[in-house]
Amino acid sequence: MQTVTTSSLLHHLQCSHCGHSFDPLPGQTLSVCCQAPLLCCYDLDEHRFSKRELSAGPQSLWRYEKLLPVFQEQNRISLGEGWTPLLPLPRLASDYGLQHLTLKDEGLNPTGSFKARGLCLAISKAKENGEEACIIPTAGNAGVAMAAYCARAGLEAVVVMPRHTPDAFKEECLAYHARLILVDGLINDCAAKVQALNQKSGYFDVSTLKEPYRLEGKKTMGYEIAEQLTWQLPDVILYPTGGGTGLIGIWKAFHEMKALGWLSEHQRFPRMVAVQAENCRPVVDTFHGKQANSKQYVGKPTLANGLAVPRPIGEPLMLTVLRESGGTALAVSEDDMIEGVSELSRREGIFAAPEGGALWAATKQLLRQGWIRPAEQVLLLNTGSGQKYLDNLKGKWRS
Amino acid sequence: MQTVTTSSLLHHLQCSHCGHSFDPLPGQTLSVCCQAPLLCCYDLDEHRFSKRELSAGPQSLWRYEKLLPVFQEQNRISLGEGWTPLLPLPRLASDYGLQHLTLKDEGLNPTGSFKARGLCLAISKAKENGEEACIIPTAGNAGVAMAAYCARAGLEAVVVMPRHTPDAFKEECLAYHARLILVDGLINDCAAKVQALNQKSGYFDVSTLKEPYRLEGKKTMGYEIAEQLTWQLPDVILYPTGGGTGLIGIWKAFHEMKALGWLSEHQRFPRMVAVQAENCRPVVDTFHGKQANSKQYVGKPTLANGLAVPRPIGEPLMLTVLRESGGTALAVSEDDMIEGVSELSRREGIFAAPEGGALWAATKQLLRQGWIRPAEQVLLLNTGSGQKYLDNLKGKWRS
Repeated sequence: MQTVTTSSLLHHLQCSHCGHSFDPLPGQTLSVCCQAPLLCCYDLDEHRFSKRELSAGPQSLWRYEKLLPVFQEQNRISLGEGWTPLLPLPRLASDYGLQHLTLKDEGLNPTGSFKARGLCLAISKAKENGEEACIIPTAGNAGVAMAAYCARAGLEAVVVMPRHTPDAFKEECLAYHARLILVDGLINDCAAKVQALNQKSGYFDVSTLKEPYRLEGKKTMGYEIAEQLTWQLPDVILYPTGGGTGLIGIWKAFHEMKALGWLSEHQRFPRMVAVQAENCRPVVDTFHGKQANSKQYVGKPTLANGLAVPRPIGEPLMLTVLRESGGTALAVSEDDMIEGVSELSRREGIFAAPEGGALWAATKQLLRQGWIRPAEQVLLLNTGSGQKYLDNLKGKWRS
Repeated sequence: MQTVTTSSLLHHLQCSHCGHSFDPLPGQTLSVCCQAPLLCCYDLDEHRFSKRELSAGPQSLWRYEKLLPVFQEQNRISLGEGWTPLLPLPRLASDYGLQHLTLKDEGLNPTGSFKARGLCLAISKAKENGEEACIIPTAGNAGVAMAAYCARAGLEAVVVMPRHTPDAFKEECLAYHARLILVDGLINDCAAKVQALNQKSGYFDVSTLKEPYRLEGKKTMGYEIAEQLTWQLPDVILYPTGGGTGLIGIWKAFHEMKALGWLSEHQRFPRMVAVQAENCRPVVDTFHGKQANSKQYVGKPTLANGLAVPRPIGEPLMLTVLRESGGTALAVSEDDMIEGVSELSRREGIFAAPEGGALWAATKQLLRQGWIRPAEQVLLLNTGSGQKYLDNLKGKWRS
């Protein structure tokens, strides 16, 4: 096969804790200096990538190819991910007295969730780096996405998932011919299982933030939000926060765009809101000073599987985003997230995952508290479709 | 609300049987002259719509706004439908000795199927025409899509579906607050129920081809295929054929593009292939002369709900497409379509509906027969995601 070089501007990797630089060589996981996540750093210069070039790009996350880490075109593993629609929510806005309410619908990604973005990049780079088999601990959606991209790339896939995850997630992994391992517990228990397995197997571990490239896929949501709003950022972004890669990635994108000269000098960054479930609210508790960190946090399962991440490795980075942005963190109950799903579907025709329902519940809460003002531009980042959650949502629609 | 006029070039409606013209007034259903489907006719002139204008359009089916029937912008009901990816299938192509194999993945539409296109237009026009409630007989996906677009538009929705349809289809309709009516039988029995109900209720009936606008949404697949292949059409298109609106719509699009001067004079149109299930193969039997038409055909349920349409009203139009294009029609078994789904997912990372699996099974059959030649450009139109079919697909993956 002919080798065609991409126009990636990736320059080096950087330890997110101490700032030490590393070459983007194969096999990079956490930084060797601090055991912290590694961040991709690019040559950010408007002369090398002008936003005017974007209109000629593909209608997928690959329109930002120069700011993505893949070096050879044949390693770009694509299923049509990204460039998801930004939908106005005029009926809910009017019901609750908001003036500018929109939802970015990540449910229209391959495999039905935002996880496609991160795993698309992680598996593309795994292929580029010569890996042959990948393993992932997952609350559900990330495992499905990894299985799909591995199938597409011709890599072996091992998915380790909580046993209580709805069948739809498991079956889709099996359809992609992944090896599926079920664990009693939450995603941190799955992570422990992955570590134990990997002491002998040597699969490449694509756990959240333990390799540098899932974050790069996720950050494209930030670029798309800016481009779709013609480079005017919203006032508030609500994000359902489990591992938090999207929250961190969107914030990284805003900083990169600033450095690229793509945003006006006066552009304020949005206040970022981490939305969690009452059943598993580690970041909320740390943010509000109820614990020093979540290293010992014990969570319970929630309908929103993606939020059942009790001890996220990216917590320090998430807290930085929330504080830098003047944002906040809050948790919603199981009942409130179901009511959120129900309102989004019956009023706006959008069948969101419980994670997305939680965002709308949180918006109403923040509006009542006066933290969100009626004239502000509010964006809900709905991370996935409700489809795979039907086993647990069945019969819960308000009549 | 401010009224903004779209740039629709819709000129009149035409009876598909006798050619008689009608104004595109509200309430149009079948033609009054022949009780045949009505077709939308536009002012097709390159000076009024050049394909060079397209690059500035939205990344949805609304990029073809001038060739769509909505007159006022506020009636454009959108959930981000259309402009779905065209994915190469390099691994399957290489496994079976094909040189150019691609799949258009309609599973990335809102509600997970191509039905979003047709119902988007039908409900937009229903709103424009002042309708307040719509009703549909459906094998599954069309009902879900109608329920979503009605919720988005603020219209009441009544969905009439076979009782044996997998729960995922029913639950999603309920999430959108549609009224769901279950019927013992197939879609023709649901259609009879709709007619009986409508003798007193007066809901607007958006049955396949009984109103003129679903076809216009479906035809956008044809425009997208041409545009995504930079105006070079493939040699063969395989299409899973139930009601057949997509087959007819794609063909209509090719003719419109020819009239618009968007295709080269030497461009040959693709050979169109109707793929059905052994359990319900009315068009296959008529095409091959085993019956005069399907008006008395009795079908059985199939895993591919969308193919369980025993007496499609559009049969005459479908036969015209197959014959004009030099195409063919064939049926595949339940086992072969499952194996098709399985191969698409494990080799290419695409989790298709059984309808999509049937296409791949049919391709292999036609390749063995020599009807498809290895050097030809072959396009599979995968109409939806496998997600809603999991109840019936569970455990059927080859290990």
